[in-house]
Amino acid sequence: MTPLITLTTDFGAGSPYVAAMKGAILQVNPAVQLLDLSHRLPPQDLRACSFFLRTAIPYFPAGPLHVIVVDPGVGTDRSLLYIEAGPHRLLAPDNGCWTELASTVQGSLKLITLAERRFWRAAVSATFHGRDILAPVAGHLSLGVKPEQLGPPAKQWVELKLPEHRSNDSLIEGEILFIDEFGNLLTNIPADVYQNCRSRIKEVLVGGEAVGIQALTYGEAPSGELIILVSSSGMMEIAQVQGSAARRLGAGVGMPIHIYL
Amino acid sequence: MTPLITLTTDFGAGSPYVAAMKGAILQVNPAVQLLDLSHRLPPQDLRACSFFLRTAIPYFPAGPLHVIVVDPGVGTDRSLLYIEAGPHRLLAPDNGCWTELASTVQGSLKLITLAERRFWRAAVSATFHGRDILAPVAGHLSLGVKPEQLGPPAKQWVELKLPEHRSNDSLIEGEILFIDEFGNLLTNIPADVYQNCRSRIKEVLVGGEAVGIQALTYGEAPSGELIILVSSSGMMEIAQVQGSAARRLGAGVGMPIHIYL
Amino acid sequence: MTPLITLTTDFGAGSPYVAAMKGAILQVNPAVQLLDLSHRLPPQDLRACSFFLRTAIPYFPAGPLHVIVVDPGVGTDRSLLYIEAGPHRLLAPDNGCWTELASTVQGSLKLITLAERRFWRAAVSATFHGRDILAPVAGHLSLGVKPEQLGPPAKQWVELKLPEHRSNDSLIEGEILFIDEFGNLLTNIPADVYQNCRSRIKEVLVGGEAVGIQALTYGEAPSGELIILVSSSGMMEIAQVQGSAARRLGAGVGMPIHIYL
Repeated sequence: MTPLITLTTDFGAGSPYVAAMKGAILQVNPAVQLLDLSHRLPPQDLRACSFFLRTAIPYFPAGPLHVIVVDPGVGTDRSLLYIEAGPHRLLAPDNGCWTELASTVQGSLKLITLAERRFWRAAVSATFHGRDILAPVAGHLSLGVKPEQLGPPAKQWVELKLPEHRSNDSLIEGEILFIDEFGNLLTNIPADVYQNCRSRIKEVLVGGEAVGIQALTYGEAPSGELIILVSSSGMMEIAQVQGSAARRLGAGVGMPIHIYL
Repeated sequence: MTPLITLTTDFGAGSPYVAAMKGAILQVNPAVQLLDLSHRLPPQDLRACSFFLRTAIPYFPAGPLHVIVVDPGVGTDRSLLYIEAGPHRLLAPDNGCWTELASTVQGSLKLITLAERRFWRAAVSATFHGRDILAPVAGHLSLGVKPEQLGPPAKQWVELKLPEHRSNDSLIEGEILFIDEFGNLLTNIPADVYQNCRSRIKEVLVGGEAVGIQALTYGEAPSGELIILVSSSGMMEIAQVQGSAARRLGAGVGMPIHIYL
Repeated sequence: MTPLITLTTDFGAGSPYVAAMKGAILQVNPAVQLLDLSHRLPPQDLRACSFFLRTAIPYFPAGPLHVIVVDPGVGTDRSLLYIEAGPHRLLAPDNGCWTELASTVQGSLKLITLAERRFWRAAVSATFHGRDILAPVAGHLSLGVKPEQLGPPAKQWVELKLPEHRSNDSLIEGEILFIDEFGNLLTNIPADVYQNCRSRIKEVLVGGEAVGIQALTYGEAPSGELIILVSSSGMMEIAQVQGSAARRLGAGVGMPIHIYL
């Protein structure tokens, strides 16, 4: 079967850097299949990248190699890693961009620090390790190079500090983690926390504004209403029926959510 | 030949939902080839989706399976369909999103309602049937599952009401159907209606502003001029040479077009 | 090995025209592999296209066929070309969109004017030669048609006039060529010109504002600082650490750069 390499970056959807990375992979293995996951992650936003990978990668089978380039520290002494997280294989900077994926997958972790320059491009720029290191390493892996040939095992990895929800008998406090392109607000309150208290909710405030309707899906309430539901990624979500909750509430990442019980 | 599955959604170009769908297809058939058509359809806009499919799908050969997810009714009792429209095969919500394609293709229609849960993901969310039903069903079809195994035939399908042009001896009235990324205005006036009256046109008004020049292609008039031409999709089109007619005219979908004869 | 065709256009990321081109290629050769490079080049901007191709194509191996559609002259008497530039093969309008690529690749040029209509779609529209000529020709090439069958050799090609930097003992003058999605400013001052004078620089002005710090990579200066560095594409670049230099400086393509020595 043709090996598959996926690409996830913050380069922008039409960036020449994405195209150059594709070329650099094909330069090593012209027979590989390439698959775009996203090139529109918010620039240098590690939290958004972590959310993205947690939402997408668990649905993939074992097999593909996922190349991740959100890399504000490019050219500094941050490491580049080969990662096996359960059945999933990644190449990514060691900056925490895969933190949530690590906590959702079953099975052990394997980490290798990319160090063997013979699998890199001959000339490595200071500002584009995606093209000059990750892309050729991905190509070599797809040709059968063993991860252990890429460098020494890494004993630890940089973990992202993510905002956690807090709760007591009368209040659950969380915040907005991610806003999708429909303007739906994904929170850091897990589905089970929300569902366990559903029947006892007195009021839900999003940045101070009350959201009244609890629903199972978008089509359950009249057009324009704000609703609370469980997102397809397993979190509490705020949405506006046939509209954008983000625009309606002027919401941004980090805006607080209060559930009064 | 490697089976090919195309993806058309309104999820946004960088959405984790697109990536999750790709994973969910590959989960079922890791050997399939995936092809993005668009992920930037206007959110929940069935008319734009219908225009898109009419403009794109007829150019494809028989063979690919086209998965369409513009689904404002997700989780309600709307059906999901397997569709054979002439040589083309689609998976889509039964919400009219393929209405114009149905009228442009030759040959008979075959419709199956997706009902057999054994071809779905084990856990089906209330808000993301693209990932949980359409993606795995697409994977199974690419492995050789017969459409008839997916569920019972559908006897009817939801048809979109589309604005039709009206004409009499002295006036043709239409409206803007779609605005492309150049700002060209695609109308609902068919090419032959426009061409048959070309020599008799006294005035063309777009939202009240006169457009004077009839051209065959963009390069025929001076830069900045508004022109009328036949679009590559077979409709009357308004464009600005080396500019955006949409911006120039402040035009939006639904704006009226009047051709006075 | 499956033949590979890449696509680079200014149609917009979600355009039905991109999808129609993909269909028209597969119509001729259903077994080809398609790869998006970019569909977000600035509309009808030949200089941006030239920069894009120079930045991306040299990283590709020989083998893929690159189809380029930035075509403000569609339907006029401009030619369409098959191009061999060193190891790279392109199909593109003869409007200079590949000018910089021509100067960066080693080896000879081969140019063929597309003239043989039997390799085109039966009906050729006046406004969409990407779908009606370039796409089917790409399909036929991927099936083994020889370039010489497509039409007669072209003896010359349209070259884009690009702004060149000027320098004397006390001043180097250049301008901004391209702004990437991070807001980094790529200039027309080659890396070696900048590096050779680095130690003698008294002041660098970008549109009148001084940029003080010379760095090797983005992480070397404090967040928010403006820095000068060598871009991964081999030009002098202005960036803001963890920010957008374009926004900070209100910069646009063509803005002057002055290096006082």
